[in-house]
Amino acid sequence: MVGRKMLRLLETCPWVEGDPLLLTSARSAGSELVFSGRTLACQEVNSSSFDNLDIVLFSAGGGTSLKWAPVAEKAGCVVIDNSSAWRMTAEVPLVVPEINPQRILLKPGIIANPNCSTIQIVMAAAPLDQAFGLRECHVTTLQAVSGAGQEAVQELLEQTRIYPKHEPKDSAYPRMMAFNALPAIGKQTEDGGYEEETKVLHEMRRIMDRQQDLHITCTATRVPVLHGHSAALRLVFDQPVSAQDAISVLEKTSGVKVVANPHDYHTAREIAGKNDVFVGRVRPDTGNPKALLMWVVADNLLKGAAWNAIQIANVLAEKNKK
Amino acid sequence: MVGRKMLRLLETCPWVEGDPLLLTSARSAGSELVFSGRTLACQEVNSSSFDNLDIVLFSAGGGTSLKWAPVAEKAGCVVIDNSSAWRMTAEVPLVVPEINPQRILLKPGIIANPNCSTIQIVMAAAPLDQAFGLRECHVTTLQAVSGAGQEAVQELLEQTRIYPKHEPKDSAYPRMMAFNALPAIGKQTEDGGYEEETKVLHEMRRIMDRQQDLHITCTATRVPVLHGHSAALRLVFDQPVSAQDAISVLEKTSGVKVVANPHDYHTAREIAGKNDVFVGRVRPDTGNPKALLMWVVADNLLKGAAWNAIQIANVLAEKNKK
Repeated sequence: MVGRKMLRLLETCPWVEGDPLLLTSARSAGSELVFSGRTLACQEVNSSSFDNLDIVLFSAGGGTSLKWAPVAEKAGCVVIDNSSAWRMTAEVPLVVPEINPQRILLKPGIIANPNCSTIQIVMAAAPLDQAFGLRECHVTTLQAVSGAGQEAVQELLEQTRIYPKHEPKDSAYPRMMAFNALPAIGKQTEDGGYEEETKVLHEMRRIMDRQQDLHITCTATRVPVLHGHSAALRLVFDQPVSAQDAISVLEKTSGVKVVANPHDYHTAREIAGKNDVFVGRVRPDTGNPKALLMWVVADNLLKGAAWNAIQIANVLAEKNKK
Repeated sequence: MVGRKMLRLLETCPWVEGDPLLLTSARSAGSELVFSGRTLACQEVNSSSFDNLDIVLFSAGGGTSLKWAPVAEKAGCVVIDNSSAWRMTAEVPLVVPEINPQRILLKPGIIANPNCSTIQIVMAAAPLDQAFGLRECHVTTLQAVSGAGQEAVQELLEQTRIYPKHEPKDSAYPRMMAFNALPAIGKQTEDGGYEEETKVLHEMRRIMDRQQDLHITCTATRVPVLHGHSAALRLVFDQPVSAQDAISVLEKTSGVKVVANPHDYHTAREIAGKNDVFVGRVRPDTGNPKALLMWVVADNLLKGAAWNAIQIANVLAEKNKK
């Protein structure tokens, strides 16, 4: 799903000359995709696939990235990888272009695209950290099923259609997803969490260049939403911060759309298909003048994945031109 | 929906002798409901309806309760009111029988049944407060549509059926509900919140007999779940508390079912129809030894409404016997 979104976004990039090369596994080789009205056939990836390419966008599993990203790097490419395989590797930059674009270097190597939830949370939290000093970030996410892939979307629609019938079978979900909420995304981690939660903790700190002193907690849940993740945030700062102070900062933040009325908000279904991160319900924590609550929504396939990767490619193309 | 659940639960109460009197508005008078296999006709409420009754369960709007609860009280009844009308009135006890049963007095008067979300949160938080001293409680709820009534349930099913078509019309929801998440339940309040959030703050403190020193925040969201509310909690105590410490306390708490594995949990759809409150994903906050995270699920129509009210009635019946 992310790969197809990348293709749509690439159609609008002025620096793209000619057609992209579409590389897949042996199983998908020969399948066709449309780019700018032309039908392109996918080719099986092999050890010489990356010769003479500048930028390679990976949107496959972590295993594929671990195997092929170093091959592309060796061939002289800059790799923008959407899997989690390289995100915590010290020498691999983990980039959200609005926050740490300086990490994007114009030389062969791997650049990691962060986790979808992390991106939208950090888009709100990082500018506020810059302005006021962030001490704590407590998050509950309500995540769309498209983050689990096309089959998960189809399965939710099917489970919904046959409700209240159950159909126990091999599932993309740990429990029934239709008309339910599941506090478990990804594999289990040793600290009692699930991978999605651990990703938010570790990736946020890397992107914001912060250490353990930035205290983060996360409960990540999957809800019966097709597209668009929502996140309820509670942020604690080094100093008292009013809702208006925070809104003023977010109004100036590129890639963020904020509504000033504390009762107003965006919803996942409304913003699906848009590139921005939407912040609403910015309001005081009546028990702590240093804390604020807010509601952050973004399209997990766009800013949470494909659009962030294309933005990185845009920065590379711009540097290349200079 | 709550009234019908109350009727089902009353069928199992050994102290109920004969048939209950079913009182409704003029509009619903004459409609029939089944109790223990017998068909009973609803009667329009009037000023002498409450004469010679012992216990009156109200499950109507706040306006109805404001008008008729004092009439029932004057007629010598104990009123158990499920609306929000009387919950913050100083002389009206707000009761969760596992937590503050001593507030239930055997004399004419009004007893308020708390808000659905409040009940399930306080069922987990109050015993932990008793054991370890609770300082902060930060909540994100994921609430089922049955809390908004039978029409809201039907509307979600219909919106789901016609997806992706939109049908703008008079709605039980502020935005599209199907495949969406809405951070707005109830009317807007002056502090930038919504009523559902404010209820959790004020009612929790009343039930736990705590003041402003118990710091609570809440983001209340509506999700496309038919029955059962979920809540992600972060609790901060006066002292370091391990997940195992908390689990040991909750294992001994009447009305609570807790799973010890930090990765395990219950979901709304699984526990719908059950009276208990289910706690899972109890795990450390790796940034603060005094804090814990957990996931609390309950049927909003049962423990969140009808069952809690019937439990209060059970206590009254027991006292009456003595």
